[in-house]
Amino acid sequence: MISKNQIKQITALHKAKGRKKAGLFIVEGPKAVDEFLNSSFEIEAVYGTREWIEFAPQILDSAEMISEKELQSISIQKHPNQVLALVKTPPPSTPPTQINDLCLVLDTIQDPGNMGTIIRIADWFGIKHIVCSKETADIYNPKVVQSTMGSISRVQVSYTNLIDWLGKIDGAVPVYGALLSGDNIYETKLSSKGLVVIGNESKGISEDVAFFISQGIKIPAYGNSDTESLNAAVATGIVLGEFRRIMPI
Amino acid sequence: MISKNQIKQITALHKAKGRKKAGLFIVEGPKAVDEFLNSSFEIEAVYGTREWIEFAPQILDSAEMISEKELQSISIQKHPNQVLALVKTPPPSTPPTQINDLCLVLDTIQDPGNMGTIIRIADWFGIKHIVCSKETADIYNPKVVQSTMGSISRVQVSYTNLIDWLGKIDGAVPVYGALLSGDNIYETKLSSKGLVVIGNESKGISEDVAFFISQGIKIPAYGNSDTESLNAAVATGIVLGEFRRIMPI
Repeated sequence: MISKNQIKQITALHKAKGRKKAGLFIVEGPKAVDEFLNSSFEIEAVYGTREWIEFAPQILDSAEMISEKELQSISIQKHPNQVLALVKTPPPSTPPTQINDLCLVLDTIQDPGNMGTIIRIADWFGIKHIVCSKETADIYNPKVVQSTMGSISRVQVSYTNLIDWLGKIDGAVPVYGALLSGDNIYETKLSSKGLVVIGNESKGISEDVAFFISQGIKIPAYGNSDTESLNAAVATGIVLGEFRRIMPI
Repeated sequence: MISKNQIKQITALHKAKGRKKAGLFIVEGPKAVDEFLNSSFEIEAVYGTREWIEFAPQILDSAEMISEKELQSISIQKHPNQVLALVKTPPPSTPPTQINDLCLVLDTIQDPGNMGTIIRIADWFGIKHIVCSKETADIYNPKVVQSTMGSISRVQVSYTNLIDWLGKIDGAVPVYGALLSGDNIYETKLSSKGLVVIGNESKGISEDVAFFISQGIKIPAYGNSDTESLNAAVATGIVLGEFRRIMPI
């Protein structure tokens, strides 16, 4: 049984403001919850339906049994999936001041699914740091958490004023940016050290950030398509794949 | 004002069975609806809130004004966005019997967001045909439609019994498959003509389909990561990007 007050406290975590205040975030679904139970993250509470509790991978003193209807009342999903956990937010990361390898920079990725997928890609390609504009989707947004598939515990993601931060880095390493006006990435000299900037899903890289780009790159289109662009996460995958193809680590 | 009967008819389209029966599918949100209004697809009905009707890009005799609450009752989304259109399903495509270029084969992609993104990637890379197992997400699933960003009108997507179809193609062209046991794609000879098979998000390529693969390929991981795999759409993007890098069309 879940109280009205609990519902209020949990649904407050659907929003960034509520997560910040409580120092907690939501993880949903058996697979993701299981991953967090087996990670270094600290679990605050677990709410599962009978179906989940009976087949739970671990015996949890802290797990509370709730009905489907109660789960619906706290879930962010239209069709919740058996279990919802509250996890403690670790202290925020700070952006690196020295760049010794490839570092991904996100200039306001807004879609939580894209954000999660990008963290997973970075993990795959051995990227250790992602530096984000303050307007980029919160990594503790439940939909981001869902899409990272556990990578969230291995990649450092920090939020900062990109202009100030880029100003400090400026000139030390090449700054690559995915731009429609960029050079064909397959014909561009790529370095093993530097920043790779990915812009917003519809607006691309903002003018102030573009100022710091030393090499624009683009993935050439091959269709006679009217497709505006590739999905931001797919573009990130292709770009990082090309960096690693040329210079495996 | 929308009747109970209309709500029933529209929500039936949330499911593949209902869409098949009615020959209609749902498009949601101003951007996507606008794209379909400007396409060759036939529009059956448009339901918009006052906010949408007032700023509608076209004067539509067929547009009906509804309240936010009514939109909520017919939408598949938790947070519907101004407008929902019903569009007529075109006749189904048949899979190609002769392969003259690169053709994408999907062995049960289940996530509608991945499916939509893959169609968009295919469009970008000039892929004309996608052949899917019958269990692959329906292209007219509202979430697929949402993620394709209009590419759905330019790429032929057909559903078939993959085993029977592959049996007919067998030997005529190379069949590449994204497999964890595959060869490093960056060190593999790629052809400009052939099939590229992408498997299910969690189960990969099924055994029966894998039987037809003449060349397994994989994208090497560079992190010391526990990441199981890349997202299926991202993997598709990287694989097709590599084919086009080597052999631009």
